[in-house]
Amino acid sequence: MTPTAAMQATSPASTLFPQTPSKGRVYNFSAGPACMPECVLEQIREELIDCRGGGIGLLELSHRGALYEALNNEAEAACRKAAGVGSDYAVFFMPGGATVQFGLLPLNFVGEGETATYIDTSIWSYKAYTEAARCRNVSVAFDGRAIKYARVPKKGEFAEPAGAKYLLYCQNNTVEGTTFWAPPETTLPLIGDATSDIFSRPWDFTKHAMVLAAGQKNLGASGASLIIARKDFIASATTKLPTILRFEDHANAGSRLNTPPTFAVRVMGLMAEWTLKVGGPTAIAKNNAYKANLIWDAVDNSGGFYSWPAEKWCRSHLNVCFKTPKADLDAKFVADAESHGLFGLLGHREAGGMRASIYNAFPVHGCELLAQFMGDFAKKNG
Amino acid sequence: MTPTAAMQATSPASTLFPQTPSKGRVYNFSAGPACMPECVLEQIREELIDCRGGGIGLLELSHRGALYEALNNEAEAACRKAAGVGSDYAVFFMPGGATVQFGLLPLNFVGEGETATYIDTSIWSYKAYTEAARCRNVSVAFDGRAIKYARVPKKGEFAEPAGAKYLLYCQNNTVEGTTFWAPPETTLPLIGDATSDIFSRPWDFTKHAMVLAAGQKNLGASGASLIIARKDFIASATTKLPTILRFEDHANAGSRLNTPPTFAVRVMGLMAEWTLKVGGPTAIAKNNAYKANLIWDAVDNSGGFYSWPAEKWCRSHLNVCFKTPKADLDAKFVADAESHGLFGLLGHREAGGMRASIYNAFPVHGCELLAQFMGDFAKKNG
Repeated sequence: MTPTAAMQATSPASTLFPQTPSKGRVYNFSAGPACMPECVLEQIREELIDCRGGGIGLLELSHRGALYEALNNEAEAACRKAAGVGSDYAVFFMPGGATVQFGLLPLNFVGEGETATYIDTSIWSYKAYTEAARCRNVSVAFDGRAIKYARVPKKGEFAEPAGAKYLLYCQNNTVEGTTFWAPPETTLPLIGDATSDIFSRPWDFTKHAMVLAAGQKNLGASGASLIIARKDFIASATTKLPTILRFEDHANAGSRLNTPPTFAVRVMGLMAEWTLKVGGPTAIAKNNAYKANLIWDAVDNSGGFYSWPAEKWCRSHLNVCFKTPKADLDAKFVADAESHGLFGLLGHREAGGMRASIYNAFPVHGCELLAQFMGDFAKKNG
Repeated sequence: MTPTAAMQATSPASTLFPQTPSKGRVYNFSAGPACMPECVLEQIREELIDCRGGGIGLLELSHRGALYEALNNEAEAACRKAAGVGSDYAVFFMPGGATVQFGLLPLNFVGEGETATYIDTSIWSYKAYTEAARCRNVSVAFDGRAIKYARVPKKGEFAEPAGAKYLLYCQNNTVEGTTFWAPPETTLPLIGDATSDIFSRPWDFTKHAMVLAAGQKNLGASGASLIIARKDFIASATTKLPTILRFEDHANAGSRLNTPPTFAVRVMGLMAEWTLKVGGPTAIAKNNAYKANLIWDAVDNSGGFYSWPAEKWCRSHLNVCFKTPKADLDAKFVADAESHGLFGLLGHREAGGMRASIYNAFPVHGCELLAQFMGDFAKKNG
């Protein structure tokens, strides 16, 4: 349940990763939508007017034409390669973010009188649970709210109701600054919400019946999702639903069951290709660990000026959260950081404090600057 | 049931409308995603790197930040103005295209043992019906399939089952080349699918309980929808659904119930603002009529070389469809047209022939060139 060697690496990052933003752009610590590699943004800019020399822009391409078909297939292939799954898994895109998928899961897989269960480690997994509870019978397998979301469950520390149609968990908790370092071991069909950690580290997708990820963090575009799912699992869904709300129908139609979110799919494809280009999840995990440790170290070495309730063994490498001793100092921190070119550090409204969201594309130098700024701010205000 | 004077106008279009594409770009007659105004594409290109001088690109903006809030509110305001609805209507955006909304309608509004009814004038309205029929009791109010979709119903020519929760129709039929020139008169809550004709002409939204429009034609970006709905109608939906699948919850959250499709919303906003800038639906209707008449006239003046089964009184001004006497001549037409810079003319696979989709932003000169080409082709091959 602790980071692997790769995830703990502290060696300086590869120069393939973004280092500093170009002129006029700031360091954007937003939790999502979040900063993207500038090379991907430039590629999108180029394609908007004329995609691949056909005289038609990316937004204007027929989703039934050969050119869009190629873009779609390239996006699926890059995501499949980054995930490392075989032909027993479908890799496809759907409209809507993770919350839409939270709504569709009970309708697809939980019949009247059946149940599903949720590991609750964050406001997002709780949202997945409450959305399902509006229409189906669901239960809480691990009650993280009772321990103020200070950690994820330890091995076996959750219920597995017999016959539950799935067990859902959130792989990385953006608001709480915690993460699972391995998928929970279970005999139930496991569903992982990977919205904030997809392709951020080596990850065993094959332990899952389904992994879903909305686009707006490591995949670039909000309003659409990547789904990686065992074919036999999605085939088990009820057919008494409109096809457009069934995961299996989207998979069988190759992500083109209807007019898909074509732009978002292309952006997700470009992000997945960038993921592979910089070295894939293994290289990215090292870079993310290096970045995160800079900031967590600044918390730990502040003599108690900065703190965060999350237990150290499950600290996230993607969302580093911290508070000063007083709420008004937190506000001053956020304002002063902006004057140093460090934006988007205000914590989630339900957790308070600060949050540095540093997904795969966040530039290394921004983390160095933030750690430096944290030290200076603590000296002046401590 | 015939076009109004404004819709029949044949005066040359305002110079505010696109006339010819810029260098390297072709005439794109795609049915959707479809061609967009180049001024909108250029604006998006600029915002992708740095949106409004904040140092953060459009795709990277937090949906909870002040800047995105402004973009969202501007988009809603422009759509509200173009629609001309008052405060009894909600104007908001949702993830997913029209097919997603087709799936959500029965789940929201039709309980077990209740019913809804559909005017079937096209493969799309039939799809709306079949999607609903998978989970709820629905009926066909007008059976256009029985007359091969040659026209829309005449006044009162459809059933209105007592107690039906809504009556759905498709305002413009992209595959069949037909259109309603006025909303059907009914006492049932009326739902219009305006995906292909939104803001293309003056339209009485207040005759509707809901009008929905996916983005990929007159609103620019696929994978998201504009919804204009009477507040009391969407409030009548069941609460036994995940909030993310309820229209009312999206409306009440100001299109930010979860992380929305931020890019698509911005694109829809820019398209709605462009709609207003060129003169709004009234000016656009005149321009569209001028463009469509050029091509329909080329059909009618071909001495029978070109034909289309749709009845003339309900011909679409947005999708002009035609066939030559033989399928192999159709294929030759499509290939020859491409060599003249006219792309995307292949008809829908279920209808055959050719289709010129000429939505609001399609350049006037492209219609003139197509009409000329049609005459030349008929002479050579007739």
